[in-house]
Amino acid sequence: MGATIIDSSIFGNIFSTDAMRQVWSDRNRTAKYVEIERALAVVQGRLGIIPQEAADEIVKNCDIDKIDMDKLRAATERIGYPVLGVVSQLNALCRDKLGEYCHWGATTQDITDTATVLQIREALELVDADLQGISAALVEISRRHRDTPVIGRSNLQQAIPVTFGFKTAAILAGIERHRERLAQLRPRVLMGEFGGACGTLASIERGAMETQAGLMEELGLSQPDIAWHTVRDTIAEVGAFLGLVGGSLGKIAMDVKLMMQHEVAEVFEPFHPGRGSSSTMPQKRNPISSCYIHAAVSVVRQHAAALMDAMIADHERSTGPWEIEWIALPEAFCLLAGALKQTRFVLEGLEVDAAKMRANIDITNGLVMSEAVMMGLGPYIGREYAHDLVYDLCREAIRTNRPLLDILAEHPEINVHLDRDALARLCDPANYLGQAGVMVDKVLQRAAGAVR
Amino acid sequence: MGATIIDSSIFGNIFSTDAMRQVWSDRNRTAKYVEIERALAVVQGRLGIIPQEAADEIVKNCDIDKIDMDKLRAATERIGYPVLGVVSQLNALCRDKLGEYCHWGATTQDITDTATVLQIREALELVDADLQGISAALVEISRRHRDTPVIGRSNLQQAIPVTFGFKTAAILAGIERHRERLAQLRPRVLMGEFGGACGTLASIERGAMETQAGLMEELGLSQPDIAWHTVRDTIAEVGAFLGLVGGSLGKIAMDVKLMMQHEVAEVFEPFHPGRGSSSTMPQKRNPISSCYIHAAVSVVRQHAAALMDAMIADHERSTGPWEIEWIALPEAFCLLAGALKQTRFVLEGLEVDAAKMRANIDITNGLVMSEAVMMGLGPYIGREYAHDLVYDLCREAIRTNRPLLDILAEHPEINVHLDRDALARLCDPANYLGQAGVMVDKVLQRAAGAVR
Amino acid sequence: MGATIIDSSIFGNIFSTDAMRQVWSDRNRTAKYVEIERALAVVQGRLGIIPQEAADEIVKNCDIDKIDMDKLRAATERIGYPVLGVVSQLNALCRDKLGEYCHWGATTQDITDTATVLQIREALELVDADLQGISAALVEISRRHRDTPVIGRSNLQQAIPVTFGFKTAAILAGIERHRERLAQLRPRVLMGEFGGACGTLASIERGAMETQAGLMEELGLSQPDIAWHTVRDTIAEVGAFLGLVGGSLGKIAMDVKLMMQHEVAEVFEPFHPGRGSSSTMPQKRNPISSCYIHAAVSVVRQHAAALMDAMIADHERSTGPWEIEWIALPEAFCLLAGALKQTRFVLEGLEVDAAKMRANIDITNGLVMSEAVMMGLGPYIGREYAHDLVYDLCREAIRTNRPLLDILAEHPEINVHLDRDALARLCDPANYLGQAGVMVDKVLQRAAGAVR
Amino acid sequence: MGATIIDSSIFGNIFSTDAMRQVWSDRNRTAKYVEIERALAVVQGRLGIIPQEAADEIVKNCDIDKIDMDKLRAATERIGYPVLGVVSQLNALCRDKLGEYCHWGATTQDITDTATVLQIREALELVDADLQGISAALVEISRRHRDTPVIGRSNLQQAIPVTFGFKTAAILAGIERHRERLAQLRPRVLMGEFGGACGTLASIERGAMETQAGLMEELGLSQPDIAWHTVRDTIAEVGAFLGLVGGSLGKIAMDVKLMMQHEVAEVFEPFHPGRGSSSTMPQKRNPISSCYIHAAVSVVRQHAAALMDAMIADHERSTGPWEIEWIALPEAFCLLAGALKQTRFVLEGLEVDAAKMRANIDITNGLVMSEAVMMGLGPYIGREYAHDLVYDLCREAIRTNRPLLDILAEHPEINVHLDRDALARLCDPANYLGQAGVMVDKVLQRAAGAVR
Repeated sequence: MGATIIDSSIFGNIFSTDAMRQVWSDRNRTAKYVEIERALAVVQGRLGIIPQEAADEIVKNCDIDKIDMDKLRAATERIGYPVLGVVSQLNALCRDKLGEYCHWGATTQDITDTATVLQIREALELVDADLQGISAALVEISRRHRDTPVIGRSNLQQAIPVTFGFKTAAILAGIERHRERLAQLRPRVLMGEFGGACGTLASIERGAMETQAGLMEELGLSQPDIAWHTVRDTIAEVGAFLGLVGGSLGKIAMDVKLMMQHEVAEVFEPFHPGRGSSSTMPQKRNPISSCYIHAAVSVVRQHAAALMDAMIADHERSTGPWEIEWIALPEAFCLLAGALKQTRFVLEGLEVDAAKMRANIDITNGLVMSEAVMMGLGPYIGREYAHDLVYDLCREAIRTNRPLLDILAEHPEINVHLDRDALARLCDPANYLGQAGVMVDKVLQRAAGAVR
Repeated sequence: MGATIIDSSIFGNIFSTDAMRQVWSDRNRTAKYVEIERALAVVQGRLGIIPQEAADEIVKNCDIDKIDMDKLRAATERIGYPVLGVVSQLNALCRDKLGEYCHWGATTQDITDTATVLQIREALELVDADLQGISAALVEISRRHRDTPVIGRSNLQQAIPVTFGFKTAAILAGIERHRERLAQLRPRVLMGEFGGACGTLASIERGAMETQAGLMEELGLSQPDIAWHTVRDTIAEVGAFLGLVGGSLGKIAMDVKLMMQHEVAEVFEPFHPGRGSSSTMPQKRNPISSCYIHAAVSVVRQHAAALMDAMIADHERSTGPWEIEWIALPEAFCLLAGALKQTRFVLEGLEVDAAKMRANIDITNGLVMSEAVMMGLGPYIGREYAHDLVYDLCREAIRTNRPLLDILAEHPEINVHLDRDALARLCDPANYLGQAGVMVDKVLQRAAGAVR
Repeated sequence: MGATIIDSSIFGNIFSTDAMRQVWSDRNRTAKYVEIERALAVVQGRLGIIPQEAADEIVKNCDIDKIDMDKLRAATERIGYPVLGVVSQLNALCRDKLGEYCHWGATTQDITDTATVLQIREALELVDADLQGISAALVEISRRHRDTPVIGRSNLQQAIPVTFGFKTAAILAGIERHRERLAQLRPRVLMGEFGGACGTLASIERGAMETQAGLMEELGLSQPDIAWHTVRDTIAEVGAFLGLVGGSLGKIAMDVKLMMQHEVAEVFEPFHPGRGSSSTMPQKRNPISSCYIHAAVSVVRQHAAALMDAMIADHERSTGPWEIEWIALPEAFCLLAGALKQTRFVLEGLEVDAAKMRANIDITNGLVMSEAVMMGLGPYIGREYAHDLVYDLCREAIRTNRPLLDILAEHPEINVHLDRDALARLCDPANYLGQAGVMVDKVLQRAAGAVR
Repeated sequence: MGATIIDSSIFGNIFSTDAMRQVWSDRNRTAKYVEIERALAVVQGRLGIIPQEAADEIVKNCDIDKIDMDKLRAATERIGYPVLGVVSQLNALCRDKLGEYCHWGATTQDITDTATVLQIREALELVDADLQGISAALVEISRRHRDTPVIGRSNLQQAIPVTFGFKTAAILAGIERHRERLAQLRPRVLMGEFGGACGTLASIERGAMETQAGLMEELGLSQPDIAWHTVRDTIAEVGAFLGLVGGSLGKIAMDVKLMMQHEVAEVFEPFHPGRGSSSTMPQKRNPISSCYIHAAVSVVRQHAAALMDAMIADHERSTGPWEIEWIALPEAFCLLAGALKQTRFVLEGLEVDAAKMRANIDITNGLVMSEAVMMGLGPYIGREYAHDLVYDLCREAIRTNRPLLDILAEHPEINVHLDRDALARLCDPANYLGQAGVMVDKVLQRAAGAVR
């Protein structure tokens, strides 16, 4: 049972996912250490840097199931870092001291950094899959509701009508940009580390660069031009990316929870019996996923800042800043994974009440059509004057609680130009959706063109 | 095995403590729910709000060991919150439907908030104990090294001598202020919550305020004037306090790691065989605790900001901001607990090399005594002129790598006023410690006066 | 014209205030330097540490209007810090080199820290005045609307009725706690700094502590037990306080903007012609102050974290962390001042539509009274069963869009216990306000008791 | 005189630059508004959407020098946003009400967002130029010091030798990655906004998309697929980029200030008379630029988080989150500009003391060569055993303060395999630089290949 919400047996699957937790688990991290030591032995055996016999023996024993995790914890608490403990165990597993060729020329941070990159690769695949899922759900909603009118809101005030598909397509455009960012950062970030004590590979007399190249090839990572033990922009970039994605999820959650308000009631998170219910208020339909998304991404962005802080590293191996990553990176991924899951759940099952959307457009007695009216009157009485006049009439409509159309139709400066029918057409939301559909189509086309 | 560093079976005891993790564990949180439901039944039975028979039956079953945690997880994932799941289990444990009087008039957040406050109380006790330990260690060091000269450093440059006890007493003064802050915030923060769905206790027809008062008395918490479901300054205040304490620990770690540099070598973290060693560089003595402290507090301060974000709550029960606390508060406490433990470990076993401190004062050929010289010459040649002259002579000393004393003694504008002996006295660090000892004594006196 | 929003001639009075900007202006900061140098001369003259003639001459010239700010800028850019430039100018202003006794025994940070504390004192007075204004406005609203029903909302869902005065009194309770915090932190924070190069006052041969005591008395600050050049908890505490206050203002802004939604329309920011209007949508009534409050406090809390970062100071004078304060502290104060002003403006002129509040309670066909119904049925059919039954009937009311009362009155398991009249009473909001009024009174009493 | 450090007439040129402040000045922002309104009139005149006569008249008056800034401030304070005030002034400047065709179909946020993007374009050009300058300086240093030995430091402990060019090339690799990021984000970010009230361009009856396309072409920006009024990933991405760049600058500053310590004295910020001097300690050489860099980037990363917070926008125009950008974006750019300037100043004039670097390698009596020794002994006595043995001998060298070489040469298990000469070669730093030079060359090659 964990003390953190992520590792809580009660909350863990709400705020994170099994798959992402597995990526950052003790077992997977240690498995990565073992995998790297194995790859190193393979490569160094092949290059003749260590005896082939030693390489074979090491490879044979590089099996995460052979690692005693209790012993590893004890060693880590004593030493401060786990890699040496793993190497000692591997060494002990090998016959005839052949294990002493394990970890040849490496430093602990080579292994931990490369392991982190391997974990990031797995974690980004999970993020990517969820981004694709979210993209697909948004494509589907945007297509289905391309022409479903809903009131556009500005400053939480009803403004002019848009379509629900337009709302979601705008968000989709951002998700597609995230996928582009992800594609761009991957080659930068998925770069291994192998430099020895201070990055120079001084500990390998011959074949150093070949070992580095071979190791990275073995692991499917790019070879660094130079050590990056204390040049951490790639790790911080991952954190920044997670923070940016989180921002988009937070925007989705914000809109969903606002639209789920009793007074608005336009969309709903998927209904599951019991979910989002209160212990005392059975009528409620809580935007429960949206809550979790909001909370998770609020912390992810602070972790993004913490990961930038981790860049302020000293000399060749930093004294504290590096360990910030140990705390913040797994948490940022785990929390974002929860937020992605919840977002996908919301979008894939989103209930949309188009009738209520249409009804809400009318609650202002037509005031939300004032821009249309103002634009329509502009050619006759001048745009700024039309603005001021309509503004006044709208306030009259508010004061008298009468439909704007009635007031417009009565006004001598207006009905001299347009009769009631013409004014009614100006006041019809369906006639004032502008380029909503065109823009939705552009976004859908872009999304369809993206590599999936 | 956890995905977070806090719950990692490998790293958990480095970055946190068992005791603090236990406070924020699923079990303890749930136990607090049960404890509160029990206290509520006791009070409501006594007040005749629920039948005494029901109260007795509920109390009998309010036992954390009777809660099925797997069932609770399933219910929580379905509903979104765990309290209802606990209440259902308690209800089911009671005979004859008497359990339906459990949780009478309460809302889930009443239970979770009050549980959080009870957890905060336990957690602050742990923090307090460590602050006392750190204070005691600093008292001891400050007393022992009240008169041990060490170079004072400004902008990482040697400035003028101080004493090591003066360094630590300045830090101690801040720790004592933290203890004062803690004493001041406790009565504000240790306030229970019991308000029903929207805080008005509408769900209790009679005896509502008496129930609230009795419940808080039973739990040893103060009674709130009004519900605080969405007025979260007290929780955010706890986070801010943790962030402030973290800042002080970070300062200690910063000084220790700087003083442990090979080129400085004045103090050392306690030596344990193997600890802080590198897998490849046996000569190293890594400031390993200082690393962990630095990293932990860097994240704690971000959580402090997140907890302020959690204050932006909507209406009577917030939609996302509240859940920020669920993530950030336990982590902030757990990470700070680790930093406190490491700090205490460092200070209680700190190795101080007074000889090296003395030697380092001399490495600038006496330049660090230039202020003393400048002040000493002021009465003879004017302070600003003395400043400029000594500044020039210091640069000459640097350029020629000669002792400042020699250069001073040769200078006609100077030796006309002071002979070499007088100048040597000006250049003796022991004669230029100012009020260091007096100030140490003031801090020690203040610390001694504090309630322990 | 400034590049920052705070110093923008266009936006400055929206995001900050003249008074707060004046506190942190170049002129006021420099004036504080001059004031401190003056006080130092007064005290050191009195103590005979510097010649009385010098003291008099220095005092005569310690006049901010005599400082050439252009020259000061040039000197600061060359040296990196402004104090030395001020001292040079003062020195040059004095006749007969008497100015060389200016700044006697002080270090630049003594002057800048003490000036900062003097600025903090002024700034906290502005904050305090606005907190009092906000408190008074909340007292007035809470009293006036003690019994005005409004729907309580949980997770942005209508829950059960509360009163509007209850909403504001809950916030008021938090404001009162801020005032308590402010009272507690002032004596800690309003502490001067005077320690010389490394805090030991080594630069003053005799009368060092007396100078320090006298200087602080002269300035109305407390005397520190020991130098705090690199022990910055008091400054960070101020930042944390501002962040906490910001959180409360953000909560107010959140509620106002949510309640100003067209679909809710329960309260409004004060109306000024043109304010909050859109260039194209005359019907809008934008929560413009709430926007600014939200934005300002979002940045203030990040500055609070930055000020905790500034605590990680090295040795006796920090190398970078200190300068974080130079950036973050004035901005945090200036932004909070803007948020306080906007909040006060909103609250002092808040328009409350009690009729609309009442009307909104009814939009759910009585569903928001379900808790009342559930509680009322509990005694007859068991609470948990009542919960489940009412929950089902509420969903039926939603599905059929019929009043809950009708459905309840038809149900055989219910009408066997309570007739339609009894059920109607259960469904009346006015009968379900619980202890709202009592709690409001408790908060008002506490606020009345606070020192004003 | 500003209240912020950025706009301070005293500190502004230390913490920022004139050029960057100019970009974010009231005048430039307003000039951008005017430029956009002008471009809009040009395009809409050409498309026949507004009369050509009106277009010509508007274009004639679109001149920033004609805008009355005092009037604009007054209007902004009244309305809350400045665009409408600018449009009113332009309107009033035009004859015959032709100005009413100004701003045709636009919403205020169209203008402000597009202006912000134009400002970002200018600001990124400044950042790019400084990144190129920093890159060039690092190329120069890396080339010159490709083979200059300096001790590598890990956890602030001396580890093994590297070269100074290797240190700087590792940082250079990160700077080159920033330039790649910048090239990738520009096309995403430099996208204009033109959507009308809710983004649908409903306010333009015909030629809406053509207007949008033409406007963006006129301004040299890309055309958005859909409105992004509340989809702010591109703005937050800019903030994240600034935070990442800041991290790299902070790393540089950290190394410089550590290497400037008296006890280390390997590199120095450029010397200017008076700069970095203390008012009382003439021997000091303060890392003054490094201080400012450290402080600035510490705040920039918090602004990066704030800009992610700004993404949590509601509906079609956000209620508060947007205004976070108004505060945080200019400050992030202004502070980073200061940090870039200071970094460039440091690197372009960096003083490197190669002799002191060499001398520092020797201060551990050869202990820093222990890895070399361990690696050299591995083939004879087994690597893990060699590790343990050398580790013990190093501790003996520390304890007895004797050169490691002497101890090695005396040890029977060692001298049986290697004589003193062989051991001396193992202990020579020049023989243990590994692939430092090769890696430097790889980075220089990559940097040379980058588009400049």
